[in-house]
Amino acid sequence: MIGGGQLARMMIPPAVELGISLSVLAETAGSSASLAATTIGDYRDVDVVLAFAAEVDVITFDHEHAPPTVLAALAATGIPIRPGPHALAVAQDKVFMRERLTQIGAPVPSWARVSGPAELAGFLAAHGGSAVVKTPRGGYDGKGVRVVRDPSAVDDWFAASAGEALLAEQFVPFRRELAQLVARRPSGELAAWPLVETVQEGGVCAEVFAPAPAAETLATRARELAAHIAESLDVTGVLAVELFETEDGGLLVNELAMRPHNTGHWSIDGAVTSQFEQHLRAVLDLPLGDPSPTAPVSVMVNILGGPSGERMPDRYGEAMAAHPEVKLHSYDKDSRPGRKVGHLTATGDDLAEVLGRARAAAEFFKG
Amino acid sequence: MIGGGQLARMMIPPAVELGISLSVLAETAGSSASLAATTIGDYRDVDVVLAFAAEVDVITFDHEHAPPTVLAALAATGIPIRPGPHALAVAQDKVFMRERLTQIGAPVPSWARVSGPAELAGFLAAHGGSAVVKTPRGGYDGKGVRVVRDPSAVDDWFAASAGEALLAEQFVPFRRELAQLVARRPSGELAAWPLVETVQEGGVCAEVFAPAPAAETLATRARELAAHIAESLDVTGVLAVELFETEDGGLLVNELAMRPHNTGHWSIDGAVTSQFEQHLRAVLDLPLGDPSPTAPVSVMVNILGGPSGERMPDRYGEAMAAHPEVKLHSYDKDSRPGRKVGHLTATGDDLAEVLGRARAAAEFFKG
Repeated sequence: MIGGGQLARMMIPPAVELGISLSVLAETAGSSASLAATTIGDYRDVDVVLAFAAEVDVITFDHEHAPPTVLAALAATGIPIRPGPHALAVAQDKVFMRERLTQIGAPVPSWARVSGPAELAGFLAAHGGSAVVKTPRGGYDGKGVRVVRDPSAVDDWFAASAGEALLAEQFVPFRRELAQLVARRPSGELAAWPLVETVQEGGVCAEVFAPAPAAETLATRARELAAHIAESLDVTGVLAVELFETEDGGLLVNELAMRPHNTGHWSIDGAVTSQFEQHLRAVLDLPLGDPSPTAPVSVMVNILGGPSGERMPDRYGEAMAAHPEVKLHSYDKDSRPGRKVGHLTATGDDLAEVLGRARAAAEFFKG
Repeated sequence: MIGGGQLARMMIPPAVELGISLSVLAETAGSSASLAATTIGDYRDVDVVLAFAAEVDVITFDHEHAPPTVLAALAATGIPIRPGPHALAVAQDKVFMRERLTQIGAPVPSWARVSGPAELAGFLAAHGGSAVVKTPRGGYDGKGVRVVRDPSAVDDWFAASAGEALLAEQFVPFRRELAQLVARRPSGELAAWPLVETVQEGGVCAEVFAPAPAAETLATRARELAAHIAESLDVTGVLAVELFETEDGGLLVNELAMRPHNTGHWSIDGAVTSQFEQHLRAVLDLPLGDPSPTAPVSVMVNILGGPSGERMPDRYGEAMAAHPEVKLHSYDKDSRPGRKVGHLTATGDDLAEVLGRARAAAEFFKG
């Protein structure tokens, strides 16, 4: 696995349980996935990546940032790369993602490439005076995304873009955000978790409700849409499709991720097969596990670092005493305000009750 | 954790999820828990153990074999040892175990110390001509246990015992075998999993049914008995109490183990808090997790090595395709006939149905 963040970390438990050897190329010695790190190095350095790849049977990723040059050099060695470079290219560039989604008939917000303030002004005028502008590459957790009403609001991005266009999108007045995760093997076998509802705060995933409440017909459409995308783009491993439910009850694709995703963390404690085990199975071309939920309702709440600088386990005493039934997950990261340092999951029969417990447990880790 | 077997291995996933640093003193480089091994050395060597202990905050064990001299040296350093040496001494010596259980009023089979064939002949005569004879130390998985009808049948043990008595026990004509696992913190907080039924083959645990069927009143008595033992012996961490259900519906204590136990492996997939997470919480003196089952029925089946020498993952393709819902656990061990190399767990609503699926999945790993 290229990348040593919390997604690589959360791959360790299923790898241990299944007896699969997991090797991680981490950027730093103190990474979240350091226990499985076999190489410390820069994933943008072809020599580093090729040396790492020589020791493993299949390559996968905990982020979308591996440069095309590195992917091409890896592909030339013949080692299986899952997801493959052609699929990853779609996840790596938001303009290309919109192009490909449009080509395959997936519903997306109205969008355009904008190469400067004048083009952006035209897009704003055509879309009620507001738009969401995104840098094509490198964004995550709200970074690289701005809601814009004035074309000068992204002058810094235009200045830095070296002529590369930005992505302008219609500002979608959605009812709520949803996410559909599926996993797909090279053979084509596909498994879908239930559609989930996600609550974002400041562009960062805050809470996930699994399954999404009151979404029976939406769930079928979302599953079919995600399967269509996975097949059309030949994705292997986990594919996360972030969706808007529009005010008229439609679905629009917001973003794609081709790896385990924050909106699937609930599956560690709430599904027969977690997204991390499933990703392992899929990239190893093993038969997929049952993605069924193990409880009627699961709620995941992210734990963000606070100003105190305390680490998540520093608060275990009180949190565990009050909530012996809540599952706590620490990413072993130093706390910084706004940084994802862990998450927790509660399960039960009733969304309001489960959400109440999950939020109450999360309170112990705030501030 | 002293000992690098599969119990240490299965402690890695909850340690990763909770963000707790787990260090293992393993005997060999290729141990089952090698991922967490920070020291390779002999747990009987005081210097090795003291050097390891200097790097950790609390000591626990994946087996009962740490010698009293090592435990005494550890205790002298002031590092917390959980379970403590006084508790471990009871688990280490089957004669002492019988003495202490008798002292605290726990029901046990009729027993005696026997120092030679003459004493054993007397015991046999008083108990219908048969007895179970055990070596006080070092036995596991049926090793060090013989059913005896002739006093000469353990002459080799008497010859090797250097004057130390063997344990002779009444042969109990039991209805079935059960196990009650509890976890206890230094503060005294205690949590109990459901009573389970265990099926042994050749002295080795083969299957576990959780909860034990048709055992409502027995379950209450077993829980109270295990709590009484844990408190009386001041056990910290997981305590496994192996029990016989006698033909008249009584309970007798067969063996104790003061660590996660084969009869608790179902809890990884079938309980809110697994025995491995709970052991970590208990030995770190953190509040205990909820031991409730997450499904009405869980069945665990052990996977033993076969003559083919194939490793468990070699058979994943067929097993996973046929049973996407079954949870597979490999201990990353070379297969040898009779060696425990992994286990699997199925969950559901009906014991017969779940057992059928678990056994069908286990068939893929036989031979």
